[in-house]
Amino acid sequence: MLRGFFEPEAVLIAGASREPGKVGYALAEVMKGYKDRGVFRGRLYATNPKPGPDILGIPTFRSVMDLPEVPDLAVIVTPARFVNQVAEECGRKGIKNIVVISGGFAEVGEEGRKLQEELVSICRRYNMRLIGPNCVGVLVPKHGLDTLFLPVDKELDGDMVTSLKRPEPGSISLITQSGAFGVACLDYMYGEGIGLSKFVSYGNKADVDEVELIEYLGDDEETKVILVYAESIDRGREFLKKAGEVSKRKPIVVFKAGRTKTGAAAASSHTAAIAGSDSVYEAAFRQAGVLRAYDMEQFFDMAKALSMQPPARGDRIAVITDGGGAGVMATDAIELSGMRMAVFSEETSRRLDEMRKSGVIPEIASIRNPVDLTGSATDDSFVESLKVIVRDDSVDGIVMLALHHVPGVTSALPERIAEVDLMGKPMVVVDIGGEDYAVRFRRKFEKLGFPAYPEPERGVNAMKALVEYGRYFYHWINIHGK
Amino acid sequence: MLRGFFEPEAVLIAGASREPGKVGYALAEVMKGYKDRGVFRGRLYATNPKPGPDILGIPTFRSVMDLPEVPDLAVIVTPARFVNQVAEECGRKGIKNIVVISGGFAEVGEEGRKLQEELVSICRRYNMRLIGPNCVGVLVPKHGLDTLFLPVDKELDGDMVTSLKRPEPGSISLITQSGAFGVACLDYMYGEGIGLSKFVSYGNKADVDEVELIEYLGDDEETKVILVYAESIDRGREFLKKAGEVSKRKPIVVFKAGRTKTGAAAASSHTAAIAGSDSVYEAAFRQAGVLRAYDMEQFFDMAKALSMQPPARGDRIAVITDGGGAGVMATDAIELSGMRMAVFSEETSRRLDEMRKSGVIPEIASIRNPVDLTGSATDDSFVESLKVIVRDDSVDGIVMLALHHVPGVTSALPERIAEVDLMGKPMVVVDIGGEDYAVRFRRKFEKLGFPAYPEPERGVNAMKALVEYGRYFYHWINIHGK
Repeated sequence: MLRGFFEPEAVLIAGASREPGKVGYALAEVMKGYKDRGVFRGRLYATNPKPGPDILGIPTFRSVMDLPEVPDLAVIVTPARFVNQVAEECGRKGIKNIVVISGGFAEVGEEGRKLQEELVSICRRYNMRLIGPNCVGVLVPKHGLDTLFLPVDKELDGDMVTSLKRPEPGSISLITQSGAFGVACLDYMYGEGIGLSKFVSYGNKADVDEVELIEYLGDDEETKVILVYAESIDRGREFLKKAGEVSKRKPIVVFKAGRTKTGAAAASSHTAAIAGSDSVYEAAFRQAGVLRAYDMEQFFDMAKALSMQPPARGDRIAVITDGGGAGVMATDAIELSGMRMAVFSEETSRRLDEMRKSGVIPEIASIRNPVDLTGSATDDSFVESLKVIVRDDSVDGIVMLALHHVPGVTSALPERIAEVDLMGKPMVVVDIGGEDYAVRFRRKFEKLGFPAYPEPERGVNAMKALVEYGRYFYHWINIHGK
Repeated sequence: MLRGFFEPEAVLIAGASREPGKVGYALAEVMKGYKDRGVFRGRLYATNPKPGPDILGIPTFRSVMDLPEVPDLAVIVTPARFVNQVAEECGRKGIKNIVVISGGFAEVGEEGRKLQEELVSICRRYNMRLIGPNCVGVLVPKHGLDTLFLPVDKELDGDMVTSLKRPEPGSISLITQSGAFGVACLDYMYGEGIGLSKFVSYGNKADVDEVELIEYLGDDEETKVILVYAESIDRGREFLKKAGEVSKRKPIVVFKAGRTKTGAAAASSHTAAIAGSDSVYEAAFRQAGVLRAYDMEQFFDMAKALSMQPPARGDRIAVITDGGGAGVMATDAIELSGMRMAVFSEETSRRLDEMRKSGVIPEIASIRNPVDLTGSATDDSFVESLKVIVRDDSVDGIVMLALHHVPGVTSALPERIAEVDLMGKPMVVVDIGGEDYAVRFRRKFEKLGFPAYPEPERGVNAMKALVEYGRYFYHWINIHGK
């Protein structure tokens, strides 16, 4: 039902501008770029009430009524006082989906609230759906749909520097109440190499809200994980019902700011919404199988793991490391997270001991969990110990700490690991470091489907998401005792 | 007393090798590189028992006894079974400091333990100090002293890729029990652009331990912050006494792994040390003014803030933001950390309101703490609101969230901010994003002395370090109530 917002064949930019620097110009420039590069394969139109030449080569008309066809989507960027008139024309023309970028509605007080109510009633009258107002809109990298008015480059000390290159197409979708935070997330995603399916900043959510977006993304085949940034959730009951249904098919992670009383007060002055008690949210999310992130890094760390690896069928985790210290950190993090360090079966212990004796893994390796292959580790020792450990019924998931500085670890390790049958159990990888090798080594693992993190604690947190989601997804009950 | 380890005028590499790939070759190559680039300005010698040409152009002798002078420092990389003989020669020659990189001592069992005891007694006999054995040794970027045998580049899918470029000279020193984790930290520091004063991996700490290193670094003018990674602290009483003294002059941050019972067990199999109860450590650290980090990211986030900004004289924090959502996150994090959101004085509120009316800050800005300048923020609005807020007696520190995507924020902001008199109050900065602009914008702030973070929560955590250290440094007592 919301498909027109995400896969329109014809798009109108209402309020496009001929002046560089204006939002209506930036938006036209962005969409024209996608069309020229062949990413957006539909048709583009623009309107501007002043007579003049086509804007950036996009067929430009003085009124919506003059368009030669009915676009699937209109993006409105006129000043607030003209928005309702344009929306009215869109309705009369037969357009079914509008995104209103313009601010100056409910968020600015009484007068704006009236304007917004009027906008909604226009939409109702024409059976037209609305995202916004006061938002940055929609981004679908795969289809070249991009209503973000923020340019890719921004001037820094005289240089033009990439400031908001959009993420590559991927399988994570993000819906956000805060446009500014949404934009910051996109910047973060690009930097981390995390792919995006759909992005929606829904601003004042005068019509389309989280509930409908979750429903749509729940059915969207290109979305594997749904991320929600919210400061308030208005239709709480419907949200939980829908989220509970969708979570049976794919994970939803919510990052809800305004957790503390003071934070909630700040949120309500930000979005004029009442945030509600955090403990109520916490309990409700858990019941609906919704995972919760507490900061942005965690938000995307969880999303990456959930989009790449299967949920876990239990909470008993094995750690394989070539750095003893990192192994200790991961062990601490597992215990503190409420998961458990797996206790290997006798068979596993025996086989690891044999491998140690025969030199497959280093003689000085420690073979209890965490398995420490030490600085004498090799690719072989990682692969062979993994093969044994993953077959142990008392292991539900694996955290592999493959610190690349160890001389015997080579860049062939990711491919070698990918050949191992993991028996449907999830695995995450950690390599610490910010230099080229570490960054590329982690990316290699990720291309092969293993989410990779620069810190033991972040890897463990990602595994926790797979365990928590698994608990809901498989309805598993902790019968192992503690 | 330990100066010879950090500023030697002549260095011997004992056990240098003529075979590329060997540790004794890599080490010679690394040190020769510093000498050729003029960073290490002292004299280099090598020993190798086999006759042959000079190694990499370093004057090479068959025995320590043959050297033309007495080096200040010998770095021993021979196989374990030859180490004691070489140490004996070093002693006879009159060398006063040795670093033993070689493993194969206490960490491998009874035989190694005997070897280590013998090594220690040789050192005692000759009044010679020892770092190690079983360590990666010492790195002082400023003086080009570098006993790390790990090469800068490593092969990745056929390319030579930087894997361990050393951090630039800076004011943070790091001492670490785990060599592998220490190396990973250096990789992280380089990636984050964090400067290093001294790095010591002390391995089995058979002689020089944390206590003496903290004492030395406490007096070292080039060290502003001391970081300690430890899995166990053996001389607990002396450590706390010394740490308590040093903390009066400069901050010490400890990252102690093995916090949980299982983690501690893993640590003891890693270093054969008994870790002790975490709650005992926690209380003792607090009493000695030692700050504690719980993961690597936090470790360096805290260090950066402590090296760049003054400690806080209280825990009342002001937040200035151009992104409402980020402001809410920072508010949550401040409340959850045990700090408090500052409540502005009437004078401050009045002046901010005037600025809003006169258009110095946006009309739609929210002027209660967190101050939300909104997406209409400009450099001016940040600078002018900061000037007012920093003069408020009820503000002890400032977290500035300057999200750069906002059109009115330019790359001139850092310099503009640096011109404001902050009245001795600490400030940290946040800009979210992983693209070039965000990275360079943060670095600009850091060059001007403001630690900058990519997440609101990380900025708040850094401020927390300044507040906690301030509590010890200034002996302030919380008399404000809650």
